[in-house]
Amino acid sequence: MSPLHLDPERYFSSDPEQRRIAVELFHGIANLPIISPHGHTDPGWFSTDAPFEDAVSLLLTPDHYLLRMLYSQGIPLEALGLKPNDGAPYETDRRKIWRLFAAHYHIFRGSPSRLWLDHTFAAIFGIDRRLTPETADHYYDLIAEKLATPAFRPRALFVRFNIEVIATTEGALDPLTEHKRIRGSGWKGRVITTFRPDEVTDPDHENFAASLPRLGDLTGEDVTHWRGYLRALENRRAFFRAHGATATDHGPATAQTADLSPADCEKLFARVRDGRLQAGDAELFRAQIMMEMARMSVEDGMVMQLHPGCFRNHNAELFRRFGRNIGGDMPNVGGFLAPLKPLLDRFGNRKDFRLVLFTLDETSYARELAPLAGHYPCLTLGPAWWFFDSPEGMMRYRRMTTESAGFYNTAGFNDDTRAFFSIPARHDLARRIDCAYLAELVAGKRMEMDEAAEVAIDLAYHLPKKVYRL
Amino acid sequence: MSPLHLDPERYFSSDPEQRRIAVELFHGIANLPIISPHGHTDPGWFSTDAPFEDAVSLLLTPDHYLLRMLYSQGIPLEALGLKPNDGAPYETDRRKIWRLFAAHYHIFRGSPSRLWLDHTFAAIFGIDRRLTPETADHYYDLIAEKLATPAFRPRALFVRFNIEVIATTEGALDPLTEHKRIRGSGWKGRVITTFRPDEVTDPDHENFAASLPRLGDLTGEDVTHWRGYLRALENRRAFFRAHGATATDHGPATAQTADLSPADCEKLFARVRDGRLQAGDAELFRAQIMMEMARMSVEDGMVMQLHPGCFRNHNAELFRRFGRNIGGDMPNVGGFLAPLKPLLDRFGNRKDFRLVLFTLDETSYARELAPLAGHYPCLTLGPAWWFFDSPEGMMRYRRMTTESAGFYNTAGFNDDTRAFFSIPARHDLARRIDCAYLAELVAGKRMEMDEAAEVAIDLAYHLPKKVYRL
Amino acid sequence: MSPLHLDPERYFSSDPEQRRIAVELFHGIANLPIISPHGHTDPGWFSTDAPFEDAVSLLLTPDHYLLRMLYSQGIPLEALGLKPNDGAPYETDRRKIWRLFAAHYHIFRGSPSRLWLDHTFAAIFGIDRRLTPETADHYYDLIAEKLATPAFRPRALFVRFNIEVIATTEGALDPLTEHKRIRGSGWKGRVITTFRPDEVTDPDHENFAASLPRLGDLTGEDVTHWRGYLRALENRRAFFRAHGATATDHGPATAQTADLSPADCEKLFARVRDGRLQAGDAELFRAQIMMEMARMSVEDGMVMQLHPGCFRNHNAELFRRFGRNIGGDMPNVGGFLAPLKPLLDRFGNRKDFRLVLFTLDETSYARELAPLAGHYPCLTLGPAWWFFDSPEGMMRYRRMTTESAGFYNTAGFNDDTRAFFSIPARHDLARRIDCAYLAELVAGKRMEMDEAAEVAIDLAYHLPKKVYRL
Repeated sequence: MSPLHLDPERYFSSDPEQRRIAVELFHGIANLPIISPHGHTDPGWFSTDAPFEDAVSLLLTPDHYLLRMLYSQGIPLEALGLKPNDGAPYETDRRKIWRLFAAHYHIFRGSPSRLWLDHTFAAIFGIDRRLTPETADHYYDLIAEKLATPAFRPRALFVRFNIEVIATTEGALDPLTEHKRIRGSGWKGRVITTFRPDEVTDPDHENFAASLPRLGDLTGEDVTHWRGYLRALENRRAFFRAHGATATDHGPATAQTADLSPADCEKLFARVRDGRLQAGDAELFRAQIMMEMARMSVEDGMVMQLHPGCFRNHNAELFRRFGRNIGGDMPNVGGFLAPLKPLLDRFGNRKDFRLVLFTLDETSYARELAPLAGHYPCLTLGPAWWFFDSPEGMMRYRRMTTESAGFYNTAGFNDDTRAFFSIPARHDLARRIDCAYLAELVAGKRMEMDEAAEVAIDLAYHLPKKVYRL
Repeated sequence: MSPLHLDPERYFSSDPEQRRIAVELFHGIANLPIISPHGHTDPGWFSTDAPFEDAVSLLLTPDHYLLRMLYSQGIPLEALGLKPNDGAPYETDRRKIWRLFAAHYHIFRGSPSRLWLDHTFAAIFGIDRRLTPETADHYYDLIAEKLATPAFRPRALFVRFNIEVIATTEGALDPLTEHKRIRGSGWKGRVITTFRPDEVTDPDHENFAASLPRLGDLTGEDVTHWRGYLRALENRRAFFRAHGATATDHGPATAQTADLSPADCEKLFARVRDGRLQAGDAELFRAQIMMEMARMSVEDGMVMQLHPGCFRNHNAELFRRFGRNIGGDMPNVGGFLAPLKPLLDRFGNRKDFRLVLFTLDETSYARELAPLAGHYPCLTLGPAWWFFDSPEGMMRYRRMTTESAGFYNTAGFNDDTRAFFSIPARHDLARRIDCAYLAELVAGKRMEMDEAAEVAIDLAYHLPKKVYRL
Repeated sequence: MSPLHLDPERYFSSDPEQRRIAVELFHGIANLPIISPHGHTDPGWFSTDAPFEDAVSLLLTPDHYLLRMLYSQGIPLEALGLKPNDGAPYETDRRKIWRLFAAHYHIFRGSPSRLWLDHTFAAIFGIDRRLTPETADHYYDLIAEKLATPAFRPRALFVRFNIEVIATTEGALDPLTEHKRIRGSGWKGRVITTFRPDEVTDPDHENFAASLPRLGDLTGEDVTHWRGYLRALENRRAFFRAHGATATDHGPATAQTADLSPADCEKLFARVRDGRLQAGDAELFRAQIMMEMARMSVEDGMVMQLHPGCFRNHNAELFRRFGRNIGGDMPNVGGFLAPLKPLLDRFGNRKDFRLVLFTLDETSYARELAPLAGHYPCLTLGPAWWFFDSPEGMMRYRRMTTESAGFYNTAGFNDDTRAFFSIPARHDLARRIDCAYLAELVAGKRMEMDEAAEVAIDLAYHLPKKVYRL
């Protein structure tokens, strides 16, 4: 049986000098509270504080990183317990699913999923042996047993994970009931929402036509014309702010922005409203919406997050049969210079505007994003995102952005996850990679130790708080 | 005189911990047989077993890596013994050519060519001093002397190189005579062919018009219409399979695929057949051919290899005067997400289909290729290719693909060479870089040693055998 | 108070073996004279030999690297002493500006600006404490005091910096008065000019219309037609050559080249001359100009430098209020294969033509630039440029270009700066990174030490001299 243990010097360089420096830097930040300003956990967990169920529903089925890798090796999603829309059979025996997962655990070698999972198993569940077909049942039983105890309830874990604040993400029409309940419960954990309006701002979204009238109903605004529609969006932003939101979240296919005249906006909106879209209208509408969101952010102080560049639902058959978020989203080529120019021409020089930029196209780090963030007062670089939320990905991010953007135009770390139990692992990994990078600078005589120690604390704690106005 | 020797710890990190781990990992794979599933050696070598001639015709003139670098420094190809089409004089004194090469050996510093050549000189020919103008004649004479001995005949070297199987590449119309002779000779070396149909599937190929009727003659199919043409291609694939082929090989300019209706295919084929190409027809035809090749692979089980992204024959004058493969091919920008979607929409979820993807645009590794390979069951990532078949190139490949695709969606190593003597050097280098990468993971506590040892063996041996169905 | 000192082993790997090798390699090149074949210093400094004024006007206001980073953190350019065009107030108290800079010195952590500045402070001014708000006045006073001494006059520093030759850059219409004065002064420092014709060759340049008749007046050529215009350009090139120029410098937005017929050139020129530009005319004109510049280089032996890919003046408001070169230029996506083909088809195989290529899009290093430079006799790769003139940027450059282009198709280092005091720092940094890269090769048994030592000298000294025909 292979042991499982977390090496206290993990993810640092094996060079003794760098390792020593990294250990010292990490010592200064290991126990800082977690700031989680961008993520997708379920506020219902914290409002109800109900126990989690079992290893499969907790760790496997909601995690698209795991689903995609298993699927790539020929394992049908049905065998992993996902229910297809077409009535085809699917596995419901969770122990059997867990065993299947354990039998393929080797395919995750070298992936961040493996690191997060091992951290979860060892640090949260106290397991001391590796997941293999032989230990699968031990894992399954022990996890179920622990989950049934009070120490593994969501609120207890929130405290144990040392979370100072966590942001969830809700659609513009969401009543924020769970957030209200959390606040009304007297519990002191800080769980805030984030305003994600795609459903009511993207004409290509499958719910757009149905959502528009609901937006009108909810806000009491006349959303049949552009100005009323904008007022309705402003209204919802105010509602979200009242529930703790300090940020908005936007994931269009491209970074395109536009600056149309009010008259052109009105005409474009009329076509969008009536479903009479001409070629290019949907993208132009999204581009103009980005401008409006920036304008509203200037007015209401919400931080605007923009993460373009995802080709959603690339696998047509799986999207049809299983819907969104099952591993079929792919990074695409993206550009920023010309697309962002209209928005930056209007708001780029405003110090009171904050736009956090993310990318899935690493080629833009050093070429476009760091130079932009190292110039425009409004811009801050979000961390390495999604597929790049990994040791190599985060190290490339620092190496390719720091020289042009510095550290102080970056936003610290976002865990961006719906996998609650992985949050300590992800912050631990991110902090360690930042320390490893800083150790590289210190060992290479490119930074002094006292300055590196200050930067490490800023990256782990002060920058995300400041950037997200928390 | 400078000594030449191969350091047993070459290409590993100089960090003592990583080096120790890499040495141990390499020890476990150094003597594994060579699996060479994709290459361009001459089957005639193994059918005739005739001796090779001399250093120049063996090592220099067929190697476009060497020709291009020498040419870049102002050495005319004629001076290297290449015969131009225009009747201009060219050097025929091979010793003189070798001396010219030796006088410029320093320009290869830092290139993989230098590493492969030094390995060839030291490990195969037993030379112990560096190639310089002073040692040029010693090299030339010693190599000629060795090549005349039985131990340096192709079959003897095949055994000495520890090759378990090697695939050559032949055009769709090739009679595979040499392969037949090898099989008929009683010699036990496994030399198989690969089906490369560009000549009969690319309307822009200079031989296309002449090749089409020959395809009809060879197969007895009526290639004047689309369905007969497809049957003829199926027929040739069957012929290649009967001579050992397990794979097909496709090198279009882009990764574009298409899914036209049968009627549209018939019309497109008629225009192609008659040379009445409209704008975009040639690319559309190649795109549809990729779909047909995929469909045939599903039916006949051949592994489909796709390596788009080369701008062939960029140097117009050299192409005109010296033809193909003299160093004028250049890597181009390439994209995969949208171009591959038609093909993946039809066959992407088939476990019985295997598509091995290569790229010359490294920016697609982490952004598109690893995410695609880490999701679609049919996809496997081919190794770092051509210009990237090098220490830095292979290391970047692992660092940029492993976190999203893992190791088990990759195909191990392809030497992809017509330089037979470099095959041991290339596999040695590739195995060492994989060990160096694994050592980085182990030393960074991102992988345990026992798992790394298993992965090293899989990459060197089991994965290429499995992926290529050998 | 934090000490400031330059570690003698700075920028080398912390791996003891690599560090030892790098130290040894650097020892062999540390004292080589500086060859500075491409830069933007003011020839007037050397003709008048007048003292520099103070820390702010010397080190801060002319340095767009510093302006942009400070601006990104919300500091208005007016507060840094820049005078806006609109009559708005701006800071004139230089001590106050210096204090503001010192208060934000931490934002440069991890940037090359920090390394260059600390080198300047320590090695040139002999300061031994870090720049902080507390030491700001000490810095300001000490720098002012030193600048007033004879040892800090431009010519004395030229000697102290060990500059063998430095090239400035002047517009095509420049009378080169300062260069004449330098030559006439009897001073032996070699300061040469470089021919930069954008003003008279780019129809989009704001001065183009006014410059064209001046070009005619200066040269006595009839610039109302294409042939006369070309003769005028040839005339100015000859004038620059007579003042020491060995190179021309071109910074178009893209690498596009064209090969139009004389008749089409004449028509295009007529439209450009008359301001009757049609869509695409400006780019086509620039593309044809690149061809003409190449042709003239073949004829007159001047080295042609091409650095496309910059999106100039991205920040519209700052450009309007403060003009060029204040930090609003951004790297853009660039391609080389197809754009350069017309030019390479005509002159690519000429050994007597030298084209030095730079890029701001690092993705083209390994994919296009190194393969092109490793093939075409006319091509040489310029060093890592602008945003990539940094430890990480230069290391990526070597790692991504050496394997395909080797060292001997690269041009050594260009400091490309208007910051005279940073020149020793920049060459020191570049030489150290080259040694660090070579040490990586030697420690990884990819190069022998004697060859690395030779390459180090070639990169630091012989290659720039040879490439720029100095």
